[in-house]
Amino acid sequence: VNLKGIFPPVTTPFDSAGDVAYEKLKENLVSWNKTGLAGYTILGSTGESIYLMEEEKLRIVEAARDAIPNTKHMMVGVIYESTRHAVDFVKAAARVGADSVLVGAPNYYKERMKDEVLFAHYTRVAESATIPVLLYNVPQFTGVSLSPSLVARLSLHENIIGIKDSSGHIIGLSEIVRLAQPGFQVLTGSAPALFPSLCLGAVGAVLAIACAAPEATVELYNIFVGGDLARARELQFRLAPAMFMTTTYGIAGLKAAMDMMGYYGGDCRLPLLPLNESAKVEIKAVFRKAGLL
Amino acid sequence: VNLKGIFPPVTTPFDSAGDVAYEKLKENLVSWNKTGLAGYTILGSTGESIYLMEEEKLRIVEAARDAIPNTKHMMVGVIYESTRHAVDFVKAAARVGADSVLVGAPNYYKERMKDEVLFAHYTRVAESATIPVLLYNVPQFTGVSLSPSLVARLSLHENIIGIKDSSGHIIGLSEIVRLAQPGFQVLTGSAPALFPSLCLGAVGAVLAIACAAPEATVELYNIFVGGDLARARELQFRLAPAMFMTTTYGIAGLKAAMDMMGYYGGDCRLPLLPLNESAKVEIKAVFRKAGLL
Amino acid sequence: VNLKGIFPPVTTPFDSAGDVAYEKLKENLVSWNKTGLAGYTILGSTGESIYLMEEEKLRIVEAARDAIPNTKHMMVGVIYESTRHAVDFVKAAARVGADSVLVGAPNYYKERMKDEVLFAHYTRVAESATIPVLLYNVPQFTGVSLSPSLVARLSLHENIIGIKDSSGHIIGLSEIVRLAQPGFQVLTGSAPALFPSLCLGAVGAVLAIACAAPEATVELYNIFVGGDLARARELQFRLAPAMFMTTTYGIAGLKAAMDMMGYYGGDCRLPLLPLNESAKVEIKAVFRKAGLL
Amino acid sequence: VNLKGIFPPVTTPFDSAGDVAYEKLKENLVSWNKTGLAGYTILGSTGESIYLMEEEKLRIVEAARDAIPNTKHMMVGVIYESTRHAVDFVKAAARVGADSVLVGAPNYYKERMKDEVLFAHYTRVAESATIPVLLYNVPQFTGVSLSPSLVARLSLHENIIGIKDSSGHIIGLSEIVRLAQPGFQVLTGSAPALFPSLCLGAVGAVLAIACAAPEATVELYNIFVGGDLARARELQFRLAPAMFMTTTYGIAGLKAAMDMMGYYGGDCRLPLLPLNESAKVEIKAVFRKAGLL
Repeated sequence: VNLKGIFPPVTTPFDSAGDVAYEKLKENLVSWNKTGLAGYTILGSTGESIYLMEEEKLRIVEAARDAIPNTKHMMVGVIYESTRHAVDFVKAAARVGADSVLVGAPNYYKERMKDEVLFAHYTRVAESATIPVLLYNVPQFTGVSLSPSLVARLSLHENIIGIKDSSGHIIGLSEIVRLAQPGFQVLTGSAPALFPSLCLGAVGAVLAIACAAPEATVELYNIFVGGDLARARELQFRLAPAMFMTTTYGIAGLKAAMDMMGYYGGDCRLPLLPLNESAKVEIKAVFRKAGLL
Repeated sequence: VNLKGIFPPVTTPFDSAGDVAYEKLKENLVSWNKTGLAGYTILGSTGESIYLMEEEKLRIVEAARDAIPNTKHMMVGVIYESTRHAVDFVKAAARVGADSVLVGAPNYYKERMKDEVLFAHYTRVAESATIPVLLYNVPQFTGVSLSPSLVARLSLHENIIGIKDSSGHIIGLSEIVRLAQPGFQVLTGSAPALFPSLCLGAVGAVLAIACAAPEATVELYNIFVGGDLARARELQFRLAPAMFMTTTYGIAGLKAAMDMMGYYGGDCRLPLLPLNESAKVEIKAVFRKAGLL
Repeated sequence: VNLKGIFPPVTTPFDSAGDVAYEKLKENLVSWNKTGLAGYTILGSTGESIYLMEEEKLRIVEAARDAIPNTKHMMVGVIYESTRHAVDFVKAAARVGADSVLVGAPNYYKERMKDEVLFAHYTRVAESATIPVLLYNVPQFTGVSLSPSLVARLSLHENIIGIKDSSGHIIGLSEIVRLAQPGFQVLTGSAPALFPSLCLGAVGAVLAIACAAPEATVELYNIFVGGDLARARELQFRLAPAMFMTTTYGIAGLKAAMDMMGYYGGDCRLPLLPLNESAKVEIKAVFRKAGLL
Repeated sequence: VNLKGIFPPVTTPFDSAGDVAYEKLKENLVSWNKTGLAGYTILGSTGESIYLMEEEKLRIVEAARDAIPNTKHMMVGVIYESTRHAVDFVKAAARVGADSVLVGAPNYYKERMKDEVLFAHYTRVAESATIPVLLYNVPQFTGVSLSPSLVARLSLHENIIGIKDSSGHIIGLSEIVRLAQPGFQVLTGSAPALFPSLCLGAVGAVLAIACAAPEATVELYNIFVGGDLARARELQFRLAPAMFMTTTYGIAGLKAAMDMMGYYGGDCRLPLLPLNESAKVEIKAVFRKAGLL
């Protein structure tokens, strides 16, 4: 499985009643399909996975698969606390067409999540999965960090093929590249870390900004792959304010940017509150200045 | 609703296949009913709530209600990320006999959980609930802290009657007592904080140690209420190593202690691993030295 | 040596040129001498010790001793990174009349400050000192915390007689009281923690608020010692906003409050900037509401 | 002033009595002068600056200048809490031959160190200095971080020519490069961050590993400047274990490595304890495996 390139962590559209707008999801995918995106991450953190009911999650994966051609990779997020829940959902996701799963770290009992606990958890999930597993490191949300040495050990498992590292801790990503099994695929999940992560050997990226500005994100990746580091860095710096904007305002900010860029963004599910107007104005200004609008 | 006294955050027993052992739960409750415990917290953090499937949760509450007499308060944990999920579960819990609900803070998108977001979330849950709501502050698990000023604002809501503060941050608890609406009931969820919290005006406590050693915990509370501070502090200090032991080893440690004390403990659900033997020996020694065994 | 009671961590007055105003220091002490304060801490964190030159420090201790009667205890802060520097200054302080020294933890190389390093440091300082040594735990400034087990080990040294714990972490203070050698004297350095710390067995306190409001602080202590817990807690709650005000605005805020209360406060040394007027107005309002003005 | 290239943060040698061994310092410099190092940082964190007496510091700078040819840049660390102390020492350092100063952030009162405080401090130091000023960001020691926006503002000052960023937070370094005045020189102070920092536009580095292995560190830099990214990254990965080793064991570990590599390392000043033998064996093994020994 080849994970080179840019993947948007697909947002979940809601209608005005707060229910999932499956058709809007498909429409976004149809638009994105026309770009150079390598594939999609469904039900990730940016997809508000943890706000969705079980039945909604499977319908979303099914709807997404409908709209995603087989030439594009569909990675599905698996964010659960219990091992059995994660194992069950991986199976269900595989049944409805997932190409791989991105498995979050259990984290509620933070002090208990020692390397041996996480190692056992991921090993068990990987063993029961019929599709490839990616590790998902996002300590800013989980309060738990997958150490490079743990990742290196897990990279030896034949069904664990890569990691999405959203920590933004680039020395950690560097250590993962250095220590992991050759062929283990490292993706960054932090847009401000994109350029240096590629320099260090990351093969791709799962980036929220790619939901709103897929072309520019893919362009940066392609310039880098083409070998023009100076131009790649320059584009990274030009896009940086837009990249930070979506993190400053969270998913609501990203969805507002998507609305501006011609996709369906809409509101988040509660408790996430709608974005106020001044934030939208600021986001528009930043996107305009970055040459995205 | 009177929340004075000691509440154990009831552990969820599992059988050797990892399935919920409902009968063991009832047996534990029958034993605890004979002590001076004021009531119970079902499906709290210590109950491995986040490892349970929806259908298991409701069966647990029903089973617990069966075994808990109406003279004992049954508080039910509501630990969900989305507002709609929390609202739905509060209704379900009320239907199956909960006397109150203990509502966890949404926390996945930590940076987004500003006071206004949490205020709106809790207000909406409280408005839709037909039974009283308690706030649940446990930043060591959630990475999100309910500030005293937020708690004070929420305490004005007539259906928000109290808080379980498990932070162990006693100055914060003191500020909550000082700033909240008169009559707002503060419970500590930190055993090492029990004595000073009572001095500061906490009316009760939800303590893991009370699952294994209910009598000693109730005794400490009763000595305090009886006005003998020196003896209360002395007992606090005598029990302290046992209190820390259950936090050092987590729920697995608590369950091992329960097994030693004649209750059904058993193993935790994965990813939590079984306790090794040396830890059990250490826990036994500490409980013995504290005069509990 | 008896450390019962309230000690202000004496501020260092500066004149308009930023030089030490030794006479103002003496005048403040003369005023404070008329209150029920048990003694003084000179050159502590609140005394801007780390902003003073070596020669200024000794002159300040000498000036203070001039103004402090032998019936009041003079504790002198020793805040240095190197062991030899601390040892030297303890000797110098003893020569100019210090009754005890309050020795800060070395902290620059935070990761290196393991218990064995701190144990060796404090042991060496205590062995070379001709006056009693107190440990000083103030992790909010040092980024290094003295663990209760380390403090307990150090409490066995005959020349280490106590600790000022400014962490505000009351469970930690409780553990120190529980684990330390009997007779080891625990003082809290956190005003919001005063009442619960006394309940737990602290014998006294070193509190910035006592520079501005010595009588009220001493009154709280005396009420507690007199056994009226309800009134002590009530006074704690009444004073709380004033206690937090001085932490919100730092030493500049404390000095502004001192100016309002008839002492000499003045400005801090740079880089600490002068307080703006709106902060002064706020502090005045809070002190008035607390019945201090 | 051109800061391109590799600078070792020169260790301060002590003799067996714990006194500064000035001759050993000179001998080390004479050896280093034969390598491709661009210059030296004297009295930095690795130089145990905070353990030195004032008179020792100036003698060290004088001794270093004696041994450093004018073709090599001598940067001198200025690590003080008070603005006036920093201003005074900058003048003294200039008098004894410093080419630039590396000015640490005041940090004791961490919560007070707002951007406006740090801005005023650095501006005042820069205005009074007759030699160029570099900012020094090392939050792991100070607990205070210089934000990219603060650095960008300070970069407008004509006498503030660069920054040593030892945070290891590469996104922060990236933001500094992006936001600072063109020509502002960014040096990384984190060896594991060297390669990605150079990719992002850092012009050089101040690295502890360069005290023990100057040739290899300079080689990495030269390979990067020569444009062979793949080889530069490969060398970065080969050196990484040695780079982490010196951080794992601190200055004592670095000095042990220096002793192995033919320089004078020796012990640190107390409270830093001597390294045990097993650590030395481990360091030797790591240096050997990295091809340095």
